[in-house]
Parts: sequence; structure tokens; C-alpha cells
Amino acid sequence: MPEHALEPIFHPRAIALVGVSSSENTGTGSGGSGGFLGSLLEQGFQEKGGLYPVNPKMSEVRGLRCYPTLLDTPDPVDHVISLIPARAVPALVDQAIQKKVRSIHFYTAGFSETGDPEMARMESEVIGKLKAAGIRAVGPNCMGLYVPAERIAFMNGFPKEPGNVMMISQSGANAGDVVHGLGRRGVRFSKVVSFGNGIDIRAHDLFDYAAADPQTEVITAYIEGVQDGRKMFEAVKAAARVKPVILLKGGLTSAGARAAHSHTGSLAGSIDIFEALCRQTGAMRAETMDDLHDLVVAVTTSVKRVRGRGVALVVGGGGFAVLSSDAIATAGLEVPPTPDETKRLLHEFIPVAGTSVNNPIDTNMGTPEIAMKTLRIVSEAPTNDVIIATPSLGQRGAPGDTAPADDDRDARVREQITAAVETYARTQDETGTPIVALLRDRTVTPELSDVFQQEAYRAGIATYPTVARAARAISLVLRWRERRQGLPAVF
Amino acid sequence: MPEHALEPIFHPRAIALVGVSSSENTGTGSGGSGGFLGSLLEQGFQEKGGLYPVNPKMSEVRGLRCYPTLLDTPDPVDHVISLIPARAVPALVDQAIQKKVRSIHFYTAGFSETGDPEMARMESEVIGKLKAAGIRAVGPNCMGLYVPAERIAFMNGFPKEPGNVMMISQSGANAGDVVHGLGRRGVRFSKVVSFGNGIDIRAHDLFDYAAADPQTEVITAYIEGVQDGRKMFEAVKAAARVKPVILLKGGLTSAGARAAHSHTGSLAGSIDIFEALCRQTGAMRAETMDDLHDLVVAVTTSVKRVRGRGVALVVGGGGFAVLSSDAIATAGLEVPPTPDETKRLLHEFIPVAGTSVNNPIDTNMGTPEIAMKTLRIVSEAPTNDVIIATPSLGQRGAPGDTAPADDDRDARVREQITAAVETYARTQDETGTPIVALLRDRTVTPELSDVFQQEAYRAGIATYPTVARAARAISLVLRWRERRQGLPAVF
Repeated sequence: MPEHALEPIFHPRAIALVGVSSSENTGTGSGGSGGFLGSLLEQGFQEKGGLYPVNPKMSEVRGLRCYPTLLDTPDPVDHVISLIPARAVPALVDQAIQKKVRSIHFYTAGFSETGDPEMARMESEVIGKLKAAGIRAVGPNCMGLYVPAERIAFMNGFPKEPGNVMMISQSGANAGDVVHGLGRRGVRFSKVVSFGNGIDIRAHDLFDYAAADPQTEVITAYIEGVQDGRKMFEAVKAAARVKPVILLKGGLTSAGARAAHSHTGSLAGSIDIFEALCRQTGAMRAETMDDLHDLVVAVTTSVKRVRGRGVALVVGGGGFAVLSSDAIATAGLEVPPTPDETKRLLHEFIPVAGTSVNNPIDTNMGTPEIAMKTLRIVSEAPTNDVIIATPSLGQRGAPGDTAPADDDRDARVREQITAAVETYARTQDETGTPIVALLRDRTVTPELSDVFQQEAYRAGIATYPTVARAARAISLVLRWRERRQGLPAVF
Repeated sequence: MPEHALEPIFHPRAIALVGVSSSENTGTGSGGSGGFLGSLLEQGFQEKGGLYPVNPKMSEVRGLRCYPTLLDTPDPVDHVISLIPARAVPALVDQAIQKKVRSIHFYTAGFSETGDPEMARMESEVIGKLKAAGIRAVGPNCMGLYVPAERIAFMNGFPKEPGNVMMISQSGANAGDVVHGLGRRGVRFSKVVSFGNGIDIRAHDLFDYAAADPQTEVITAYIEGVQDGRKMFEAVKAAARVKPVILLKGGLTSAGARAAHSHTGSLAGSIDIFEALCRQTGAMRAETMDDLHDLVVAVTTSVKRVRGRGVALVVGGGGFAVLSSDAIATAGLEVPPTPDETKRLLHEFIPVAGTSVNNPIDTNMGTPEIAMKTLRIVSEAPTNDVIIATPSLGQRGAPGDTAPADDDRDARVREQITAAVETYARTQDETGTPIVALLRDRTVTPELSDVFQQEAYRAGIATYPTVARAARAISLVLRWRERRQGLPAVF
């Protein structure tokens, strides 16, 4: 297969940051321009490629030589990050053409989205020049690229390991929330592109790229305004034929549409049109950012294999089990009564008092052996299409645990986490019934909760913050699969 | 006012724990019986009253003398926690009568909720004896009492400071989730009673008590089955006339009802009946546990004063602002365009590029002085009934912050938290417009997030995990106030 036209922009040999700020040295910058250099350094880009800060007022920044202009940087430079004010951009573009760069990412805002006709005129002049020179532009008004395999990132704290999810985002803040939020849950990314106003590279170009990219197995996008509606429809449709595509549209209410217009100059779309787009292309529609997170987790774990609506709840705490059952029913799923044969098998080792085997299976499941036995029996019951289970871990604040948090306790909980994940993964692999895990708020520290989520995810087990969100994700996957009748299977 | 009949059970001078387990010494117990002694020790009950473990197989536990039977403990004992199996309860009841105790909390499960007719017969025999002797019973099948002012708790990690919220719960697990979850958000409790199957003390008794209790300003309850429907209705109605009452009913779906029947032997109720109960009594209905949490926060902070649907969003991040606007509109609230005069005042110090003053006000607000100025101007705009704002704190992982987490950084963020809370509280006090704060996921560590939530709460500022949940809580408060036309104001 020939290389996709956009491929080169994801593999720069050298990056120049034009207009890098002095706050880089103090670490006090926030909100954007101060952080690109720090993020690239954190990822270690300087160990593999050229990294050239440009600012005539500084000679050094973060231990790197700082150049007065782009033309003073060593050759080659294939990618430029523009951090300068909009009015200085035309001069930078002339230099970039002379320097023969391949792509420019305009973090710079203040073009046509301001509504100022002069800025709109300047924007189209800039596009004309770039097009003529064959330079591709990301932005303006965006955070640009996160390509972990190439050690490129636009915020600190992004995972260094690459993964299989590509995110296409009209908002840098939302792209950051996705990488951080899903990162904590174990998800890793092939590429993330925050493309802002999209004067050159637009959503449809990126869907087209993502569909072809061998590193990308799942595509998700946050879109505010659809440019080139027909191209977008075709690109999403083509992508959704070969990979799961999860779409979130901002600005579907009139209040949101007004905000989107201020943000990226986007015009409103309607819920109906967007819903139809998803239905006709075979994409999944996320109604909220939580949905987007939860669906990405679903399609990259065993949840994608769920075949029916029967949920077995294996959870401790009677009242929690009751509310969990309500949440599952509210999401349109079922909590089927345990078949008699399964009950008989469970009763062999679960006592009656204080527990129930009716589904919800209300038991703390004691040792890993008992947990394994219970899960296996429940997984094999013909009524159960998916199991939602709460592992019993170190139980901070639970009755009986009087030990204060300390290294020993943390080590003990880490062992329990590994044991629980192994049990879940082995049972899931052997019975074929997907297992979803959830940690209740107070059982472990937030750090250990992250450890659990990430270990589980690596073993193919989805974690969700609440039963309601797990149930909704399962339900959306089922609905999506029904709608895809006739389209090729994507997993 | 004469003392309420239930008052004495909240003020025991001495507690005997009958059937205390050996796991208390190793700290390995979980799921119940192991933890009551540990929780009482953690609260320091032994420093103010008698604490007598009873178990014939041990002579000492956690440094306390252990007695062979209840009759061997020193006098007086006014409260007994029964941790023994159901079949041993009749003998314990005889001893309790001889010992002249005032109340027994039966953690013990396995009575009538098992469906076993012999256990049901034993249960009614036990009730008869207790009634005749004037001993009040909490439970069975429950976690009992949390009374921080008296240093009584049923789980570890419960806050030691008393507060103004009373929780009535048919589930110990859910009561624990409420104390832990709301505790992290700053809420403190007057009393929490997990009353389980309610063979003696029932929900209506506890509503009656809560309405009269001077320490209780807000009442919340988790109910599975309603015993004595008429009495319950009257008790809730009377309580809701004088205090905000927030009710969550488990088992409103058929799956949930089946789970509730296994859990507490409760029979199903319908959503319509419960909705009517709330409407007719003037109580607030929580549809989920999240609702219950969010409404308790609402009625104990400035959110309770919100008079209309106009929300000003003062949030950083364009795409986040767009999705926040959508969330507010979806909850039935409005994001009114900023009036021209307010825009003019804001434009005096907010630059155009990369920000917007249209509402959402998309700005990171820089220094506390700028934040204060922005908030004040927005709070004074006649269109805005409530402000939702995201404070700019230490921005872990945000562009520009390259400093790793360390003590200095934590100290710096703590100062920023205090400054932000002061700014919010002062603006709110001076303008009268409620402010709601929310921290975005990745800005600070979970520990510092808790510090922020609790400091904000103490200053009368509500925090919510997402804009959607803040908007829903505001919307539910407004709906509830409309429905209460004709009832006395409770704040």
C-alpha cells in the first residue's frame, strides 16, 4: 500500500518551536504556549531528533540553544510549531517556505474565529501561500500532535507507550482530557491530532488517514463544526467499514452551538443530522465525553464481544447490589435470575446468611480460589452474557481493616490486584463470557485504583467507575451492533 | 421540648460487642463482624465510655479485656452490638434483659429475610421479648450507628467531626458509601443509622426523630421496602415541612426489586408511588446514589439559594466549554448570552484571542486578582443566577507545568487552593450569586482535589465532579422549590 499523503507529518526528523516563551525556564507557564517544549522534552524527542527553540530574546531555554529566527536553525527542519501572535504569522510562513519545512502546527489563535474580517483575509492569504509551497498546516487554534512512538506530545503527563487508538479532535482541551482520562484507565494511543479551525488538514483528511493507518485499530473524534459535509460523511463511512469509530459532537444544543461558534467558528448542527450520520455510516454516537471514554474502553476490551442483555452482578454489599440492579435495568439490560443448576453449584460453597445467589450474587468472595470458583460457575450459566464484578481488595476503611496505609499494605493490595486480574482474565479466557470490573470508591487509594484499572485493561478487562456507566456502555455496544447489520464485522 | 423517645440510644455510656471475632487482632477481617471494635477504637469511644468485647474463646482483644458472656461485663452496659449467629440470639436477648441494656444493634443476619419460616418465628419471639422489656432494637441485618459526637462508628475512616446531615439507611453498604463519598466532598453528619430489616426501629421512627433532632439540619434516606406505609408518609411529610429531605428508593425496577427482596425481604414499590410520595410530602427525590450525594451537597451550600435557570460558565478550555454548555442545556438550564455592559467591563482586561466573553467565559483567569474581577463582574450580571467555575490550580500535566510532584509543588497548590476558595467565597458573599466550583480531572492530585473540595465546602461553596452533575443538581433544586409552593421555607 502506498504511503498516505499525511504520513510524513507524523514523523518529523526535527521540530522548531517558534515563539517559545521565557516561562519555559521557570515552569510557571500555563494554558498553552509555555508547555510544548516541556512536553517534547518529557517525551525525549531531543534524544532522537532536532529540537530548536526560536526566540530572538533568548539564547538558551531548558538547556537547549535558542535561535533568533527560523532561518537560523540547523537543517533540516520538517515541522514547525508556531507560538507567535497571529499578526506575525505571514512573515513566519515566508521563512518556512524558504526553510522547506513540511508542516506547520499553528497553536496561534486569533484568525477567522474572531469574526474580524481582516484576520479572515490574512488567514486565506496564509493558506494560499502554504498550499502553493506544498506545506501542510495543522490548526490554527489547536494543540497539534501527540505521537508517542515518535516522542511527540502537546501536554505533560501523556503516556510514553504507544497504543492502538487514534483521536481526532477539534479541541485541544478535550483531546487532553481523553488522553489523561483514558490513560488512567489503561488506554494507549497511536496518534492524537488536535486540529482546531482546520484551515488545511480537516476532519475528513484525518478519518481517511486513520482508516488506513496500520497502527490505529480504533478511531474516536470530537467534532464541533463539520466542514465539507459530504467528504466528512464519506470519510467516516469508509473508516467505519474497517474500524470501530466513536464520534462525539459538541454544540448540539443551542447553548453549546453558541459556545462552539465562539470557540472554533463552527456553525450549529442538529442532533437529528448527527444521529443520522452515525446510523448511516455505522459509527457509534457518544452523547457525552463520559460516553466517549466508556465506548473506547468497551471496543478495546472484552466488552466488544458481548452478545446479549443478560448481566450477572457479582458484587459485595446488599444495598449496592440493589442500586446496581436498578442501574442495569434502567440502561435496558437484564439481571436474569440464576438458573437452579447454577444456584445448586454455588450453594456448595456459599453460605445462605448475608449473601444471595439469586443474581445479584451478593458475596465478598473471600479468597481468590472462591472468587475463581464463583466467577467460573456464574460465567458458565447460560443466562449470563456478561459479568460485572467488584473485586475485594485491601478495603481501606472497610470493617476489619484497621491498618493505616503504609508500604506493607500497599504491597499487599498490589498482590491482591494482580491475583484478581489473573482470576478474571483466566475465567474470561476459559469460559468466553466477558467480565467487567469495577472498584467501589472507598476500597483502595486513587493510585492503587489506577494500578488496578491499567492491569485489568492490559488483560482485556474493562473497568468502569460506576455500574450505571458500565451498563450504558454495554447497551450502546449492543445497539451499535444491531445497527451495523450488513456492514463488515470490525472485530 | 421533651426528649425524643429514641434519643437515649444515640448516647450510650458503655457498649458491649458480643461475638467479637479474633480477626480484630490481626486486622484481616472484612465484610463486617471484624470491624466494629476497630471502628469504635479509631473514633476513641474507649476514652469516654466503657467498651467491652465479649467472646468466651478470648481473654483479650486489641488491648481490651474480653469477657466470656454479656453478664460478666461491668455495669452499666446500655448498648449491645450483636455479632453472633441468628440461632444464638434468643439466649443473648435473655442476658440483655437481665443486664438491663437499653438497646441492641443486631449486625446478625439470617432472620426473616432468608424466607425460612423457623427463623421468621424466632424473629417475632425475639421482638416480643424485647418489647416487653423496653429494649429498642436496631436491625437485624445492618451496620447500626454512626454518631461522631459520641465517637461511635461502624466503619473505619469515617470523619470524627460531627455535622448537620442525618442519614437513614436500610443498607449499611450504601450508608458507608454516603459517609465516605460525601465526607470527601466536605459533608459531615449528625447521625447515620443503618437499620436493615427494621424489626423494631423503622424508617418512620427515624424520620420522626430526625425532624426533631436539633443537631440535624438536613435528612437523607436510602429505603428499600416501606413498612407501615401510612406512618412513613406522615413522618416524611412532617420532616419535610421543617427540613430538606432527600430520598433514594432502591428496587424501583423489577430487577432491583428482586435484589431488594433478597437483601432485606422488602417488597417492590413502583416509581409512580414513590414519585407521588415525594411530591405530596415536599421531599426531594434522588433517582440514583449520585443524585443523593449531589443533592445533599446542594442543600448544604449556596446552591440552595439558586433562584433561576441562568448559568454563567467561567471555565478554561474551549471544547470543555462547549460540552459544558451542552450539559447545562440538556439539564434544562440556560447559558444566557453575556449582556453588553458586562462584556464591556470584561473586555477592559480580557484580551480577545483565545478567549471569549460571550458565556461561556473561556479564560484561565490568571492571577487571583483577575479571577476575582472576572467573577465579580459575571456574578453581578442580571442574567446570571449561578456561576460554575473551574479554578486554575497547579495544573498537573498542563502545558507549562514541567515540575514533578514534590512537597514544594504541593505547598504551592495548597496556597492556590486557599486563595481560590477565598476569592469564590468573598465574591459569593458580596454579590449574593451562588458559585459552584469544579476541578477538572487532571489538574491536581486526588489528595489535593479532596483538600479543595473540603475547603470549598466549609466556605459554603459546592463542588461537583462534572458540569452535568452540577447542572442536574441545580435543576432538581429548582424543580423541588417549585413543587413546595405552599409549604414553609426550610432555608
